[in-house]
Amino acid sequence: MYLENVNGPGDIKKLQISELQGLADEVRETLIRKLSATGGHVGSNLGVVEMTVALHYAFESPKDKLVWDVSHQCYPHKILTGRKEAYTDPAHYKDVTGFTNPAESEHDLFCVGHTSTSVSLALGLAKGRDACGGTEHIVAVIGDGALSGGEALEGLNYAGEYGGRLMLVINDNEQSVAENHGGLYKNLADLRESGGNCTTNLFRGFGLDYEYLEDGHDIEKLIALFERGKKSERPIVLHVHTVKGKGLPYALDNREDWHSRGPFNIEDGYPKGGYPVYDTTIHDSLAELLTKDESAIVLTAGTPRALGFVGEDRERWAKTGRFVDVGIAEENALAMASGVAGYGACAVFGVYAPFVQRAYDQISHDLCLNCNPATILVLLPGVYGMKSSTHLGLCDIQMLSHIPNLVYLSPSCKEEYRQMLRYATTQKKHPTAIRVPVRFYESGVEDTADYSILNKAKVISRGSGACIIAVGSLIKMAEEIAASYKKETDKDVTVVNPVFLTGVDEELLESLKADHSLVVTLEDGELDGGYGQRIASYYGADPMKVRCFGISKRFHSDFNADELLAENGISVENIKEIIKSNT
Amino acid sequence: MYLENVNGPGDIKKLQISELQGLADEVRETLIRKLSATGGHVGSNLGVVEMTVALHYAFESPKDKLVWDVSHQCYPHKILTGRKEAYTDPAHYKDVTGFTNPAESEHDLFCVGHTSTSVSLALGLAKGRDACGGTEHIVAVIGDGALSGGEALEGLNYAGEYGGRLMLVINDNEQSVAENHGGLYKNLADLRESGGNCTTNLFRGFGLDYEYLEDGHDIEKLIALFERGKKSERPIVLHVHTVKGKGLPYALDNREDWHSRGPFNIEDGYPKGGYPVYDTTIHDSLAELLTKDESAIVLTAGTPRALGFVGEDRERWAKTGRFVDVGIAEENALAMASGVAGYGACAVFGVYAPFVQRAYDQISHDLCLNCNPATILVLLPGVYGMKSSTHLGLCDIQMLSHIPNLVYLSPSCKEEYRQMLRYATTQKKHPTAIRVPVRFYESGVEDTADYSILNKAKVISRGSGACIIAVGSLIKMAEEIAASYKKETDKDVTVVNPVFLTGVDEELLESLKADHSLVVTLEDGELDGGYGQRIASYYGADPMKVRCFGISKRFHSDFNADELLAENGISVENIKEIIKSNT
Repeated sequence: MYLENVNGPGDIKKLQISELQGLADEVRETLIRKLSATGGHVGSNLGVVEMTVALHYAFESPKDKLVWDVSHQCYPHKILTGRKEAYTDPAHYKDVTGFTNPAESEHDLFCVGHTSTSVSLALGLAKGRDACGGTEHIVAVIGDGALSGGEALEGLNYAGEYGGRLMLVINDNEQSVAENHGGLYKNLADLRESGGNCTTNLFRGFGLDYEYLEDGHDIEKLIALFERGKKSERPIVLHVHTVKGKGLPYALDNREDWHSRGPFNIEDGYPKGGYPVYDTTIHDSLAELLTKDESAIVLTAGTPRALGFVGEDRERWAKTGRFVDVGIAEENALAMASGVAGYGACAVFGVYAPFVQRAYDQISHDLCLNCNPATILVLLPGVYGMKSSTHLGLCDIQMLSHIPNLVYLSPSCKEEYRQMLRYATTQKKHPTAIRVPVRFYESGVEDTADYSILNKAKVISRGSGACIIAVGSLIKMAEEIAASYKKETDKDVTVVNPVFLTGVDEELLESLKADHSLVVTLEDGELDGGYGQRIASYYGADPMKVRCFGISKRFHSDFNADELLAENGISVENIKEIIKSNT
Repeated sequence: MYLENVNGPGDIKKLQISELQGLADEVRETLIRKLSATGGHVGSNLGVVEMTVALHYAFESPKDKLVWDVSHQCYPHKILTGRKEAYTDPAHYKDVTGFTNPAESEHDLFCVGHTSTSVSLALGLAKGRDACGGTEHIVAVIGDGALSGGEALEGLNYAGEYGGRLMLVINDNEQSVAENHGGLYKNLADLRESGGNCTTNLFRGFGLDYEYLEDGHDIEKLIALFERGKKSERPIVLHVHTVKGKGLPYALDNREDWHSRGPFNIEDGYPKGGYPVYDTTIHDSLAELLTKDESAIVLTAGTPRALGFVGEDRERWAKTGRFVDVGIAEENALAMASGVAGYGACAVFGVYAPFVQRAYDQISHDLCLNCNPATILVLLPGVYGMKSSTHLGLCDIQMLSHIPNLVYLSPSCKEEYRQMLRYATTQKKHPTAIRVPVRFYESGVEDTADYSILNKAKVISRGSGACIIAVGSLIKMAEEIAASYKKETDKDVTVVNPVFLTGVDEELLESLKADHSLVVTLEDGELDGGYGQRIASYYGADPMKVRCFGISKRFHSDFNADELLAENGISVENIKEIIKSNT
């Protein structure tokens, strides 16, 4: 009965403060209903319902500027800023993205999906305001989990010097995606226990003013806090204690499981499609490594589940000190991996493709310059991986392939992955990255390849006329193209898995000149600066025709992988036609 | 008389503690003598002479592991670990690099030149030690200036959780390269003033134990501190107050000037070659921008001098709040630039090419995904820029050119630079990076190009047969090649400045097909994944021959730029011969 009259923040201000909890209850109920149908980020959004109502009551968005860190928690904000139909009406469920998006609303200032960015972005807005003579308030809302990221910490440090008006709301729900890691979380716990009054205070250490609110669901107190914050002429941290998943009892019991979730039954939280069955290949390979090699250390930066380590198994390995979650801190994880390998022990760091880019400098300078034999597992790379513009893995080849000393391996199946991991973790000559394919299948054939012969490609089938060099997940398509072409023409084309993305197999490329006139490269990432262009360059002065296919340079979002590939010419039919018309 | 008997750390232990200051004095004298002849990092090394003597007395390197952050301060360490001839004997001055280097000595654990890495690298060594059952001590030495970097802060946070033995020596000389920036430096000042006893303590906020030493030049106290540190079973911060430039009175007076310095007269510090004259083009262009556009904000991450802002001029602009040094914190600077531009103000961030890679994620996700019209000035790019393996700018094109929405402009002269900066800072459509060339000359011709016509290359001279597309600094060479070829053959080749590195001029490339059979691409960065391969790929299925030239994929070090170019085929003679034999 409240929400139906709220079409923007202005309508919230028309309500009495005593009515706001009623509005919050409706927002929470709306959220739960939609999330149960569609899935999404559950815990973080349920935890900020009251905070969001209070923010929009106390501030005047869009004049005042709210910056949501990582924006995992922006659904209540979207509901209250003119987009409620996307949450109340199933026909409109897909009208909004899961992240803040300036294209959707003037109340969304940035499109973000990586953590730890809000403090710096808000600092930029504040400096812009100061330069333009503006007077509006700037507020960043950042979760406790995001505080471990270097960008956030750099931002806190500069905020401590910046002298103007800026509010940093720490939404402390005592949880990252998984549990928090790092010494600062002990300080947050002490601050919570002492009502913000303990002697040691990290935020004051950065030179920031500070205030604490224990009940982050008391709207009246939240509004009073924000009103006091508005009066501060200096940057101030408003540390607010909230409950992740508030309103869903089963979400409180397992906050990691309920960070992000598929559709579920509201009564008991049971997943509508049943519990997903996860592939255990990565976990099993790493558990085997940890078991066989007592010097082995596996690192994650806040995403242990990405490596298959969950529950008691995770706890058991963490206790050995050799399964290490450093929190959301990719730079530290990568440099630590270099240090572990530099010591002579074995290090594996597993990271999602969209986040490996947070450690480019560490990969180049800390790891590869030192040529330490650590291993990076790049997870969910390419077009079949994550599909939001905020979480793309389309440029891992661009980012990694040019770095000296690095060997970037691209397995096409589980057997190859296991053999490559064995190779990478037992050799001592160079750092290795492994591009773990999303379409991860057993080939049924044991892989006995010797990966110490660098840049040696695998010829899957040998034909003549045309050769298809296909990266990772696209090997299967290349085989389909070859089969379809054979069926139509009774001729065989050559199919190659390049295996190494950090170099080309010159011997093979030379040999193709004898009886091939066309090389087609297929990759499931961006074309520009990708693998295929290295082949084109190799044959640049040669009569060999080279056609490179990859994804166009854009922040693609919410796409269907096969459709996006086809739009970029990567389909069995199109490539087959190109081969037919060019040979 | 002490130093002559010290050929390794073992020899230091043979001395009485009372004799160690004598050794330190000799090390300092040796340093001053060599630095006056060769130049190098002056202030930081003179500040750690006593600390280094004490470290090697208290610990047993190489069994115990010393990690020097950024390694700007490793000269005394090198002198004391078997490499003193490189400092005492002019004939051996070039035997060692300016950074720690495992290839030189088992006492050097990592090759590093970027700041803020030591905590994480040391954590990795500590985890490796724990896994391997080792018992040795691990010590990171990190300067106060490096603490503002996100990687160091991530490391401090994880160190607060790591439960094992680890010593973090904060070498606090109250100075970064330039002055320090950020709230944590207020805390360091309070800690110094209170003898480490003030209530607020950033390090304790990260969960770390802490001890302070006021006189970082008292060797006996330093040894006692390190001995206490050795007894700690948990990570402990040993905060040591030192004097940057100690021993050179004139270096104390201007610590920024004496951070790094060319050869000088010992008596008065006067530079042997006279004071260098710096090009003021960048400074003047930015000062003009700040003057004309009151919303303009210029950002630097700890290197204001790179933008030509020094002395009173810097202070004056800093006071306006629109010349902003965020300290060594590239991630924050880049995200702030996105925030400033997102607000609608004008933002320019200037950064050395080797350090732009510290903000890859922020460029892609925080800036380009949001398509905010901030400007990045990439300084000292390519082979003519910095020439140490720790400070290479050979991969800026690889790192930036594939990022969607970004426009990467490559001026060949000052006029083009100024016009590009005007364009970048007045348009509101996209983020722009400008690759400021090292060989920065006035062409004498006003540039009136309209850079809003994206990907439009400039044809410097039109010929036929062959076309040279040359990036940035190599345009001059391309013109020389054309002139030399003309002289020999009386034929004209086409010379093109691509201008845009984030796309190709398809219209021009198409038009070349009519009367050209060869395109040669020249770039002053790495070949692999660079600009030229985009041209090769464009012509992949066409009879046009394409020969791409760039630098080989290696961490090149201490090279002569022209020689390295020639080794990679980039010389007037070689390219001319290639054109002659291919057309």
